[in-house]
Amino acid sequence: MKYKADIVVTLKNGVRDPQGSAIETVLKRTGMETDPNVAVGKYFSVVVNGESEQEAKSKLANICQEVLSNPVLEKYEIERFELTGGVR
Amino acid sequence: MKYKADIVVTLKNGVRDPQGSAIETVLKRTGMETDPNVAVGKYFSVVVNGESEQEAKSKLANICQEVLSNPVLEKYEIERFELTGGVR
Repeated sequence: MKYKADIVVTLKNGVRDPQGSAIETVLKRTGMETDPNVAVGKYFSVVVNGESEQEAKSKLANICQEVLSNPVLEKYEIERFELTGGVR
Repeated sequence: MKYKADIVVTLKNGVRDPQGSAIETVLKRTGMETDPNVAVGKYFSVVVNGESEQEAKSKLANICQEVLSNPVLEKYEIERFELTGGVR
């Protein structure tokens, strides 16, 4: 069976976020927002095969830790997890 | 009042996703997944001020279109929208 997960990888607390700061600067400079607060991360939509939900989840956890995130600087969160036919 | 939104920016259908393909190759090569399907996008957590929910939402839509996404290649989705004190 195929399972699809939406994964968000963000910087851990205390890690500097230069991309977020750059966007804040743009928003202020253009007057779009006077006091913005922006954090930037990565988004992944991943479809894996699994005999069971359990197996798919453990596969995904492994993929998140080993491939999609750098555990020193980043944390990941699986936002959605569902049976599916393919990637959107 | 401060409103926080989680925004996901992904490539439009039909636009090539080389990052996603690269991750698929890694997953296959390492044997982590035989038939993966991966799409990559960007994630933003944005806090804006607004007199009303309406005002905050229209501000956010403008920010998404003008700053966070390239409307030619990308689409955005506001995944969560709530009153808040600050960015997580």
